[in-house]
Order: sequence, then C-alpha cells, then structure tokens
Amino acid sequence: MTIEHETIRLAKELISRPSVTPHDEGCQTLMSEYLSPLGFDIESLFFVDTQNMWARKGNQSPVFCFAGHTDVVPTGDVSHWQTPPFEPTEIDGFLHGRGAADMKGSLAAMLVATHRFVKDYPEHKGSIAFLITSDEEGPFINGTTRVIDTLEARNEKIDYCIVGEPSSTNEVGDIVKNGRRGSLTGTLTVKGIQGHVAYPHLANNPIHAAAPFLAELAQAAWDEGNEFFPPTSMQISNINGGTGAGNVVPGTMTVQFNFRYSTEVTDMFLIAEVEKMLSEHDFEYDIEWIHNGQPFLTDEGTLLESVNEAITKVVGKPAVLSTSGGTSDGRFIAPTGAQVIELGPCNATIHKVNECIKMRDLELLTDMYYNTLIGCLT
Amino acid sequence: MTIEHETIRLAKELISRPSVTPHDEGCQTLMSEYLSPLGFDIESLFFVDTQNMWARKGNQSPVFCFAGHTDVVPTGDVSHWQTPPFEPTEIDGFLHGRGAADMKGSLAAMLVATHRFVKDYPEHKGSIAFLITSDEEGPFINGTTRVIDTLEARNEKIDYCIVGEPSSTNEVGDIVKNGRRGSLTGTLTVKGIQGHVAYPHLANNPIHAAAPFLAELAQAAWDEGNEFFPPTSMQISNINGGTGAGNVVPGTMTVQFNFRYSTEVTDMFLIAEVEKMLSEHDFEYDIEWIHNGQPFLTDEGTLLESVNEAITKVVGKPAVLSTSGGTSDGRFIAPTGAQVIELGPCNATIHKVNECIKMRDLELLTDMYYNTLIGCLT
Ligand SMILES: [Zn+2]
Ligand SMILES: [Zn+2]
Repeated sequence: MTIEHETIRLAKELISRPSVTPHDEGCQTLMSEYLSPLGFDIESLFFVDTQNMWARKGNQSPVFCFAGHTDVVPTGDVSHWQTPPFEPTEIDGFLHGRGAADMKGSLAAMLVATHRFVKDYPEHKGSIAFLITSDEEGPFINGTTRVIDTLEARNEKIDYCIVGEPSSTNEVGDIVKNGRRGSLTGTLTVKGIQGHVAYPHLANNPIHAAAPFLAELAQAAWDEGNEFFPPTSMQISNINGGTGAGNVVPGTMTVQFNFRYSTEVTDMFLIAEVEKMLSEHDFEYDIEWIHNGQPFLTDEGTLLESVNEAITKVVGKPAVLSTSGGTSDGRFIAPTGAQVIELGPCNATIHKVNECIKMRDLELLTDMYYNTLIGCLT
Repeated sequence: MTIEHETIRLAKELISRPSVTPHDEGCQTLMSEYLSPLGFDIESLFFVDTQNMWARKGNQSPVFCFAGHTDVVPTGDVSHWQTPPFEPTEIDGFLHGRGAADMKGSLAAMLVATHRFVKDYPEHKGSIAFLITSDEEGPFINGTTRVIDTLEARNEKIDYCIVGEPSSTNEVGDIVKNGRRGSLTGTLTVKGIQGHVAYPHLANNPIHAAAPFLAELAQAAWDEGNEFFPPTSMQISNINGGTGAGNVVPGTMTVQFNFRYSTEVTDMFLIAEVEKMLSEHDFEYDIEWIHNGQPFLTDEGTLLESVNEAITKVVGKPAVLSTSGGTSDGRFIAPTGAQVIELGPCNATIHKVNECIKMRDLELLTDMYYNTLIGCLT
C-alpha cells in the first residue's frame, strides 16, 4: 500500500498550494525536490509570469516525458464549495480540492510511478523527463510552447510524451486521447454606417448586412472527419453590435467564431473558405485569425502500444482512443515529432466547484504510468 | 424691431438655464411669468421627476395649443464646444447654445407670437394654451403623456396643436411635419444551451439557430407606404450573445429591433408578422414588445391651412409636408383627436456640439406662429 499512499500524500501537498494560473506557489519546487534525489537534473525556466520546469534523468534516447501543469483554474465562489478548495479533504473515498483531477493528482502519480520505476529498473534504457508549466489553463504563451522552443533550439527531442490531462470519462483509463483537433479562431468586424433608426437610408446596418453570411457560416459543413477525427465543427462564440440605445443603428458588429478541425483540412483551407464566403456577400469587414493549434494524431507506435498494454494490465481492458474535446499542451509537443498520448483521471468535476478524484484512481493511474514506463524504457 | 429682439432675449434667458433632461431649471417659471400678465391660468404639474406646465387663456373652443419642451440633451464633452453651451452667444448672426434649435428658440417665438397676438386681437375666439414638459428628450413617461391624461380625465380637449420641434431643413418653414410614423420595439431572447466549443453536440448555439431568422427579418418588406408615409422600416439596433470567452458557446442571444411604421400597417399586424416568422424557425425564444407610439397624420383642416398660409405670408412659399424622422410628443396629443403640426427651426445642429440657430429665423418663426394664431383664432 506504500505506493498508493505516497501518490495521495503528494496530491494533497500539491492541492494545498493555491496555484491559480499563472502562479505555481511552490508546486514545482516540491516536484524537483522529489525528483532530484532520483538522479534528475532540474532546469527552472521562468518566462514573464510563468514558472516552468524541465527535469531530465539520463542523456540517452529514447526520451520519455511526462507533461503537465501545476496551475489550476480559479475556484469561483468559495461559498459554493463543500470543502475549502485548497484544503485537500477525503470524503467517502474521494479526495476533494481544486486541481485534484486537473491535474495535481496526475502529477503525483507521475512522480510516484517514476520513483518506483527507477528503483525497480535502475538500468533502464533512454531518459525520463518532466515538462511542467504553470500556465496551461491561461493564455499558454509563456508555458509549454516556450519550453519546447528552448528544447528545439538545442535540438533536444522528446520521443514519447504522456500528458496527464483528465482524459477518462467513467472509469480511469476508459479513454485516452491520441490526438486533438486543431483550433482556429476568427474575429470578424463588420463595418456599416451608424445612424438613427428613423433615417435608415442614411445608415448602413452591419447586422442586416451580415445576417445572411452568418446563416451560411453556421450551416456550412467543412469535412466529414475520418477514422480518428469527428467532422470539423465551427461555433460562433460571441456576437456584439449596438450602442445599447434602441434608436441607433450601430456602425459595426463583431463576431468571434472558433473552428475545431480534423486532419482532413488545414487552417489555411478554412481561412480561404471563410474568406471566399465573405467575398460573396456585400459588406465591408476586417477579419483577424488566431491559430491556436495544429491538430495532431498518434495512431500507432511504441507509446500507444505501451499505454494500452499498461491500462489492460491494470484494469483488464484497453482504452478507447479519442481525439475529441478541447485543446491541450500536447499540441505544442506533437509538432516536434514526439508521439503524444493523454492519459489522466475522470474529468466529470474539472473546472467546477467540488472538484474531486477517486483515491483508488490515483493508485490505478500510478500503476498505469509505471507500466507505460516499463513498456517504453525496458 | 421690438418683436424680434424680444424673441432673441427670451431665447437667451432660456438657454442660460442648464435644463438637461429631466431638469427644468426655472424655464417654465420664466414662461409662466411671461404668460400670466397676458391672462393665462397656469397649472404646474410635477410628476415624479418631471416639471410640466399647462397654461390656458380663455375657456372657449377651439383650443389652440403650443406644445414643447424645456429640457435639452446633454452637452457631451464641453471642451469640444466653440462657446460654453449654457452661455448664449451671438456669432455671425447665429445664436449659439444648447437648446438654441431644440427647442428653446421655438419656445421664445411662441411666447412672443402669443403676446403680440393677444395685444393685436384682444377679442379673438377660442382659447390659447401651452403644454410644456421637461422630459421630451428622456424616457417620456412623466411628461406630455401624463399631462394629456390629466386633460382627458377632465375632458379638456385640444383642437389645434403646434409642436415647436425643429422641423426645417435648409430654410425655416421649408418643411412641416404633418404626422409621424409609429414606433414599435421588439426585444428577442433566443434560448440555446451553453457549452464548450469543443463539445458542440452538448450545446445548442442560439446564434446559429437564429441567424436565418435574422437574415429573413432584415430582408422583409412590410408595406409600400402611402401618399403621406414612406414604407415601414425595421432596424436591428442591438445584438448580443457570448460570454466574452472564445471557447464558450453562449446560452442565449438577445436582439433588439425597432419598427418605424406607416399608417398602412398597425402595431398588432407587425407583431403578428414577426411572431409568424419566428414560428417558422426552430428555436426557443422569449419576445417582449414595447409600443412607443401610434402613427398620426394631419392631412387637412384649419390648422394645416393656417400654418401654410402663415408660412407663405412670411417666406413667400408654403412648406413641404413630411412624416419622416423620429418620434415627437405629437404622438401623445394626436390620439385625443387634435390636429397636430410640427413647425420649428432648422435641425442641422440639434443634439450636436455647437448647436445654434440663425437669429433671423427666430424672428421669422415668431411671425409664422403669430400668423397661424390669426388663421385659427380670428
Ligand atoms: Zn488541465
Ligand atoms: Zn426637441
């Protein structure tokens, strides 16, 4: 029972640090103090407001990397919590606290799995690394992407990467993410002429002008997806026009929309399609595009095999592969050529009040990570 | 020259009172002190936050009423004004100051025209009245509409009403408004289901759902207008949906739109048309209607004849009749059965910085009002 207790103890220590994005609050120090005695070299990389850590044991290939984040989303109204969010509390076999599932429990399991693996397999091949940031939940500008830039600059490569995001749905290990869709955001400013509703001929209403375009955009299909990806989807997230006054025709309207796209299309294709659609309507506009991340896919290889063997060993059946859901820092790691898999606890309570994790799952997750290390590095 | 100077002097006294809606700042006291010696009975009617005045000389029919407002719109940034907005200043034959054109100049002209008329025609028939409010530029809840309620409750009728709103475009008296379109505002709340853009199947995007309806609403035609009214027009004035976050599908969208409608349709018809259109689309919604005013039309009668004879006498040609433009308090007076005409100065500078009126126009307007009184009450 020692291993399980160790994961729960470390999870509690991490949860008790109120590390709301981009603050780390000593979580990475705790992790490095745990890893250092195991033979890890620690690099602390602080960029602007974000604490990052690159820890590595060994200098051989292949490089197996645990990736994750010490930051958590805000608690919201603390009075809605059953227990203080930064006081880890056990209730009926669950460990409660902000970050319990996303993703301090995973970090604790990674640490303990590593400890156990290097003790059991001191002569393992390759290297083990940790890539940890404190801004995954935030603007992701000074976190994983900057660490990856640093590694790329010195040609340091990751071969296998497990991201500890809460991938599971009903039982730990029921789902692993073996890819993610790309994410592309467009911000459209439709330009009209402001005026008074009583003099419409002197105004040019941008809402009227753009409504047929928005109807067309909302109804368009972009691809049919493929074996690994659902069809590309587009959602308008924000629309705003008007001065608040009921008798004024607004001069502009802004519309923000987001694509989650499959590997059947590219960001450039989607931009071209939308701009073609815009050109077929008759209004003036500006459009700004932000590309949040390329899609990635790990559909075969040592890592995927090792992860599913490990899961099968621990819970008796392999995981279902999925590429659905939001983005993760995997999008910054996969483009370097690494195999990337996300495996973590159940996500039912993440980003909500009363976030919690089944304590038994912390033990199982530790075993899954441990067995994946065996598969990849022995 | 005595008469002209008196109008300019009174206009200056009114402009120097900073009577931003709903404040009167003593303007009505000044008016009543002017009218009392002429034989007017003054009723001061204060409702909630609004100063109103009903002044009447005589108790016979027909009742000729001057209607107007002592309040002005805010100055905006005073540093953009050429002269202090509440210090009436003459520049090159123009009188500058907030309210000069809308509508303290008209009030001064009404007072002086009345003074001259009762002096020249002491035995005139009927009655002369003033219906003055201090909230025309505001929410129009405690102003003219409440005074009309008071008059209706005691069965006191207005036969002829001149509203002093700035109806003219290039030359004073070039246009009179002999009616106004109706105004109807709808506020639509489209109901969806909030969610994450990465999980569109769990959300229901109200912007997507309503976009085809908005396109249809914006393109619809409602009537073709008639001899007196331009076609009914609809403008969407406000549209808002979204949490501000780029990755959240909003749960609701609100859309506000306003009809300016002709006498070819009714508010009930427009409501029925929009609700029928809504029923042909597939989304849940709430809709709230505010009826701001019925259309009205004065297309013949003693008042219209007298006004145009007066204008012709003063400037050599009759006015063009128009029903275009925004609403005015005439909409509250016309439904009682009164003939209502709007005649006032040029409106180029109203509600803007450096509002001003040509001083010569104050003299001409005084003559127009004076001759209209002659036409109606002698
Ligand atoms: Zn996370
Ligand atoms: Zn006015």
